[in-house]
Parts: sequence; C-alpha cells; structure tokens
Amino acid sequence: MRFSLPLLLTAMAGVLPFTASAAQSADIVLKNGLVLTMNGDKTVYSKGAVVIKDHEIIAVGDDSITNQYQAKKTMDVDGDIIMPGLINTHTHVSMTVFRSLADDVPDRLHRYIFPLESKLVSRDMVRIGANLGNVEMVKGGVTTYADMYYFEDEVARTVENIGMRAILGETVIKFPVADAKNADAGINYAMKFIKQYRNNPLITPAFAPHAPYSNTTETLQKVAKLSEQENVPVLIHLAETHHEAEVIAKRSNGLSPVQYMESIGALNNHVVAAHMILVNDKDIAIAKKEDIGIAHCMSANIKAAKGVSPALKMFDDGLRIGLGTDGPMSGNTLSIIDEFNQVAKLHKLVNHDRSAMPPIKVIEMATIGGARALHMEDKIGSLEVGKLADVIVIDTKAPNMVPIYNPYSALVYSANSANVKDSIINGRLIMQNRRVLTVDEDKIRQQAIDYTQVVRDTVIKSGEQVL
Amino acid sequence: MRFSLPLLLTAMAGVLPFTASAAQSADIVLKNGLVLTMNGDKTVYSKGAVVIKDHEIIAVGDDSITNQYQAKKTMDVDGDIIMPGLINTHTHVSMTVFRSLADDVPDRLHRYIFPLESKLVSRDMVRIGANLGNVEMVKGGVTTYADMYYFEDEVARTVENIGMRAILGETVIKFPVADAKNADAGINYAMKFIKQYRNNPLITPAFAPHAPYSNTTETLQKVAKLSEQENVPVLIHLAETHHEAEVIAKRSNGLSPVQYMESIGALNNHVVAAHMILVNDKDIAIAKKEDIGIAHCMSANIKAAKGVSPALKMFDDGLRIGLGTDGPMSGNTLSIIDEFNQVAKLHKLVNHDRSAMPPIKVIEMATIGGARALHMEDKIGSLEVGKLADVIVIDTKAPNMVPIYNPYSALVYSANSANVKDSIINGRLIMQNRRVLTVDEDKIRQQAIDYTQVVRDTVIKSGEQVL
Ligand SMILES: [Zn+2]
Ligand SMILES: [Zn+2]
Repeated sequence: MRFSLPLLLTAMAGVLPFTASAAQSADIVLKNGLVLTMNGDKTVYSKGAVVIKDHEIIAVGDDSITNQYQAKKTMDVDGDIIMPGLINTHTHVSMTVFRSLADDVPDRLHRYIFPLESKLVSRDMVRIGANLGNVEMVKGGVTTYADMYYFEDEVARTVENIGMRAILGETVIKFPVADAKNADAGINYAMKFIKQYRNNPLITPAFAPHAPYSNTTETLQKVAKLSEQENVPVLIHLAETHHEAEVIAKRSNGLSPVQYMESIGALNNHVVAAHMILVNDKDIAIAKKEDIGIAHCMSANIKAAKGVSPALKMFDDGLRIGLGTDGPMSGNTLSIIDEFNQVAKLHKLVNHDRSAMPPIKVIEMATIGGARALHMEDKIGSLEVGKLADVIVIDTKAPNMVPIYNPYSALVYSANSANVKDSIINGRLIMQNRRVLTVDEDKIRQQAIDYTQVVRDTVIKSGEQVL
Repeated sequence: MRFSLPLLLTAMAGVLPFTASAAQSADIVLKNGLVLTMNGDKTVYSKGAVVIKDHEIIAVGDDSITNQYQAKKTMDVDGDIIMPGLINTHTHVSMTVFRSLADDVPDRLHRYIFPLESKLVSRDMVRIGANLGNVEMVKGGVTTYADMYYFEDEVARTVENIGMRAILGETVIKFPVADAKNADAGINYAMKFIKQYRNNPLITPAFAPHAPYSNTTETLQKVAKLSEQENVPVLIHLAETHHEAEVIAKRSNGLSPVQYMESIGALNNHVVAAHMILVNDKDIAIAKKEDIGIAHCMSANIKAAKGVSPALKMFDDGLRIGLGTDGPMSGNTLSIIDEFNQVAKLHKLVNHDRSAMPPIKVIEMATIGGARALHMEDKIGSLEVGKLADVIVIDTKAPNMVPIYNPYSALVYSANSANVKDSIINGRLIMQNRRVLTVDEDKIRQQAIDYTQVVRDTVIKSGEQVL
C-alpha cells in the first residue's frame, strides 16, 4: 500500500518514540489488556490501557492512548484482564488465627467464638491475624476492605504497612471485651482512633457497633449521633439471625431489626449493614430510603445455614450493595473472588432461574457496588479518570481461565483467587506476578503458625475440642 | 546430655544412611507430610510418609518408616498435606473449548449446546478440548475422571499422553451426532473402542447412553446387556431435569426415571448415574439395591437452577457416591476442589443445619467415595498398601491455607485448585511444584485459544450471541 508523505508521517507517529516534551509524564502504564472499566456504560477495551499518575487514574482507553504518555513503569499484561480492585465490604481480618477451628459447632458465636475471644484477643493476636489476612486479600485481588474488630489501631498499622485501603471499625458492644470494659469504653476507644486516623489517605476510621441485639438503644443512638458529628462510617451486623430478630422484636414491640434501627434514628448514609438476610420488602424500602450500604456475605451465610439474603432484589432495586467475605472463621477465605460463583449460583437456585444474577451483576457488586456500599463510589470501584488508582490484573493463561468468550463469565464461574497476578493500590504497585512487594510474606506466615500454639493451648485448657 | 554407647548407636541409627542391602528398594518416597489416608479408620499421620514402588503404594505411616526404604526419588513435602488423588466422577472434558459461552441461556442444552455441537464436534475439537481439560484437572488435583462424549478414542490418547487415569464413555444417543448417525452406530463405535482399550492400565472404556429420555428402551436394554457381556461401565445422566421426568413418566405409565431404568433391567453395578437430583426415598432405595454409582455435581446443578440432590442422605444411607464437576460449559471448572465448599455449604443450607455435611464427608466423597461411585474402590481412593499410587500434595503455605487446626476443614472451606502442588498418578510423577511434566502446557493452551476463532465464527454464522 502506498502513502502520501503527510499520511505516512501520521501513520509513523504512532510508533515513533515521543520526546519527553511531547508526552505527558505518568507513573505506571498498564497496556495490552482486556480492560473492564466497570464505569456507568460498562465500557470494555479488548486491547486497552490504564494510565496512572501519583494516586490517580489519568487515562483509560484503547492501547493507542499510551503514545501520549511517558511512564516511569510500563506493564504489558499480554492480554490479561485489567479491572478495578475488588472490595471486601465486611470482614474481621484478625480472626485468620482461628481459621479452620470448630467450623461446624452449633450456636458457634455464643458458645465457642465469644469465649475464645475473651481469652485470646490482644494487640499481638490482632496484629498477627491482620498481617496474614492482608496478604491473603492482596493475593486475592482485594484492594479495599471494611473491618470490624478490636484494637483497630493495630489493624491500621498493618494496613499502612502493606499499603491497602480500608475502613476500620472499632467494636462497640455491651459486654466486657479485650479493649473496652463496656460500650461507652468502646465508644471512647473509637473516638481516639478516629481522631488519630481522620486524615489518613488509605484508612477511614469508623464505629462498629456489633449488632442491634448486642447493644442498647442508647448506645446505638449515641453512635449514630457521633458518626454524624465526626462524619465517619458505622459498620454493623444487621438482620442476620433469628435470635437477633426475636430479641429486637421483644425490645421494640414487634419491629424487625431494620425497622427498629430506623425507629431509633440509627440508620443513615454512614451505615454499612452486613448480611441483611432476614429482610422483607418493607425493610428493603427503608434501607433504600435511608441510603445505607449493604454487605452481602453469601459464603458465610450459607455455611452457617442462615439463609440466602434477597441481595438480587436489593441490587435490582438500586440499593447500595457489595460483596463481603465475613471473618475467616465464617467464610472461611478473605478473597472476594471465592464469593463470585456462590453469589451467582445461589441466587439462580433460590429464584429457580438460570438467568438470574448474571456474571456482570456479580462483578458490579464486587467493584463499583462495593464502593457504593461503603459510600466511596466517587473515589474507587471503577477504572475512570480521576478515580484513585486501585487496579488488579487477572491471569488469563491459567488453564481454568481458557478460553474467554465472556470475561465476566470467566471471572465468576472459572476464576479462583490464585488467578490474580498484579495489584496496584492508591497508585502503588503492591503485588507483581503474585509476589507481594511491601511486606515479608514468609515472616507473616511463620508468626501466624507460631501463634496457633497459643490458640491450641487455650482451647485445650478450656476443655473444648480443637477440631 | 550423655548417652551410653548402645543407646547412642540406637539413637544414631535413625540418621545413618542404610546400605542398599538393609533397605528395600522403592521408586518414590513422600515424607514429612500431614498424611490423610482416607482409609476405613480415616487414619491421619501428622508427620507421615507414603512409599511407592512401580504403580503401587507399598507403605504408609509415620516418617520413621522411610528408614526401611532406599528410594530413587525422595520428596520432603515440608508439612504439606499428602492425600489420595481426587476423583471427578462426571465430566465432558472436551467441552473446555466452549467454556464461558452463553452461560445463562434458558433451555441451554437443547437450544444452544446441541446445535453448537452438531456443527463443531470433530476429532480436532475433542482432542484440543481434552488436552486443555486434562491439564486443568491435573493442576486441580484430579487423578481419575469419568468422561462422556464423542470420539472417546481421541480423549483416550490425550489421557495416555498426560498420564492420567480415566473411565471414558462413548456416547449413545438417538439422534445423529458427529461420530454416529444413530444409537446403534454409537454402540458399534463404543464396542470398537472397548476392544481397543480393554487392557489399558490407565483407561477403562465404557458405554455412555446420554440419558433415558434421549434413548429408546431398546437401546438402554441393549447397552445394559453388552456392558455385562463386556464387563465395562455404563455412564449416564439420570434424574436430572423435570423435562426428563415428564418424558419418562409418559413412556412408562408414571414411573420416575430411576424406577423406569430398574423396570427395564438397565440398573446394575456397572452403572454410574450423574446428578440424581429428582429422586425420592424409593428411588434411593432402588439405587442402593442395584448397587449403582452416583456422581454428585453440585456446582453445575445449582448454576442451572436445577436443585440440590439429596446427596447427603444417599451418602449416609451407604450408597456409592462421589463428586463430579460436569462439563466445563456447566460447572464451569474441572477441579473437584472447587466443588468442596459448595457441597458442604449447600447441604447445610437445605438441611437448615450448620453441622450437616461436615468437611470429612466431603473429602470422603472426593476420594474413596468417588472410587466407590466408579466401582474402583479396590484400586484407588485411599492411601493404603496395595492400592495404585494416585497421590497429591496440597500446599499448606499459601495464605488461604494458614493455619490448619483441622485439615479437612482447611481443604473444604479454604483451599482452591491452585493449592495443589504435586501429583503422582499410577506411580508416575505427573506434576511437581505446579509444573506439569508430561505435556507442553503452553502449546495446549495456544491450540485451545486458536480454536476459539472457529467457535466464534460458527456461533456468529448461526445468528446466536457469543456472550
Ligand atoms: Zn461479621
Ligand atoms: Zn453431564
């Protein structure tokens, strides 16, 4: 084919190296990827690129856009999937140290977990468990998570060390716990933590009243008021168990947990409610009106035989809903990818419809849906210019990921957490080719394994079974 | 510490190298592992070993037994789990080439899959898809699988190449398919295949009548008779869909599919029935009396919204039941590990009991249960002296696998298919440290990816949607 000279020059421009003056500077360019933006139009670039500068995404598009940038680091992902980092909207990360312990004990929370925690929760335990869980989450593609536990300032330091993004909710509960003798002491602990981390670029401090039944009305109202005053999230377990529903109905003259929380003025756009299994249409309407976020924890819910949350209806009704793993004594993994196929399939099963909950909805819940659940959709959850640069790369060469006709289907029905290759959080490369760059994974694992002896000794002394 | 001389010598004996004459020769010694034997007593060795010679296991026990053997190859697995290879009791391995295609189309089998197969099934397609699926299964810990498809002699060659164990069932179905113009032609194809592979050490040839509704009574009876005559398995889909139940009830004056099969003399101890979802207590009693094997395919069943098989009851009633993935257009992965947590959790959910289907039952179904389902429990399914050496090693250092209080819980609730490290099949090391040693994985993947263009072109020409 013959070109006129001006045309030839134009054609060549694309392959000529730009001089530094002609190109804009960038920090990281990811190119040659199957880019799932998860923006409002669900734009997909089959051979696309994402450009990052400082903490932000400054360009997303076809590979040709990379010509306009001079990057410090260019990652050619060779056809792999580039997508927003996954968001885990509900966990208790430090509980990794208890994982695989007494999984199927009836009435497990009250009979096994609370007594165990009263003996073992400490700064050491919280740090050791969080370090391990953070590594697991990064390796599973999670870039942001919401946590509820004790000594959240310890968790905060682990999050800063690895370089993740997190909402960390300090627990408020009416009985004595490791870091507070009662609910007011929990609120005071939380207030101190909130002041300390208020302007942290990665960490959002929060209140975490454990549940409506495990707190008084006064405490729940006090937390609601303080969360407005301090402009921080409130993480809570809500509409999770029949026990909770009974306690609350007795306390409130027959209201459901959601109705009760509304009636006392404790629902608003700071709240992120985990589970929401036992909700009816009226509850769902209230959750929408009050603009609360919802963490759908399918894997944990069905493992405990608690039931299937009407998450599909809540999603379709436009509520703020994302996916959560719950704690590693519940789920038992912290990878949102492990939730994907369970979320897709259980909603098909209970709706008797194989087309219910298609993969694209699951991926939406895991990304921009999770961001909406955490009221952070202006900052994270999609690959769009101006958003914070939380980006993951999924290996498409593993045999379980071949072939890919529909990338959402491949992610939901075929992927596992080991298919995550690279992770960038807040513009920083945290994992490359499955090697975590910011912490010493071997040391973290060894500390967790060493700690299991403390757990074993405590369980054995208590006369409970270890298995 | 001081020793008397005889005591010192005894103490040293354990670390002194044995001379060849004092020790028995062996091929592979796996040592320093957490050994789950899955024998009748479910013996576990917390620091144990497995010794292999030729194709067989010649010793299992505490690490101290290794002193008695001089092995060509010793693998110190450093605390990882050593367990029987996993058994996939039902799949259609070649369908990997269609994976992630049109996953949620209603009435998918008749409206989408059968028309697609009628255009595309060929020796090339079968070989390309089987090669990919075999690699995926080995990397997911599967050492034996049962397959139903076309051109099973092509599948057989791929199985021999990679060195897996398989029961391969040649399809018999009443309408024209790629390798047979009708059911009788399918039977003839199967008979030729059976004669060719009758004495193969890794491959058991079989008949695979597609389902009761897609074959006539005469065909089903003919297959039953020939399977007795040739002493080969019969793989079939049974009690899977309401459509099937309706067709069979009409044909048989109201019998269920299981009752119909019994009434025509087509159930016996050669049969391996996949799904068994729509079965009542009477059907279960028949299945037990006739000693058929059952392939429980949870992941595929719930993805298609077909329901949950009463597999727990069948297991507890002592039926021969194992786990299956179904084909990669159904499941969508071929790794039995991906079934584990779904099997455990769904049976808890439908039984409203978190203690139902504990992990040890799931692991039993995946190993010795699968062997029983395939009527091969005398040869495979557990680590016992005299059994064929199908052994896998599971990485316990991946962050999702830390800590391990209960190894069955860790496998069922935490593991994913990428946690499989090593695989030995029939005494031969097939994968070490996730590298498949017997085939060229990159070449196999590229052939599968190249073939997707043929699929895309065909689907687009047919006017169907690709996604
Ligand atoms: Zn929780
Ligand atoms: Zn099938």
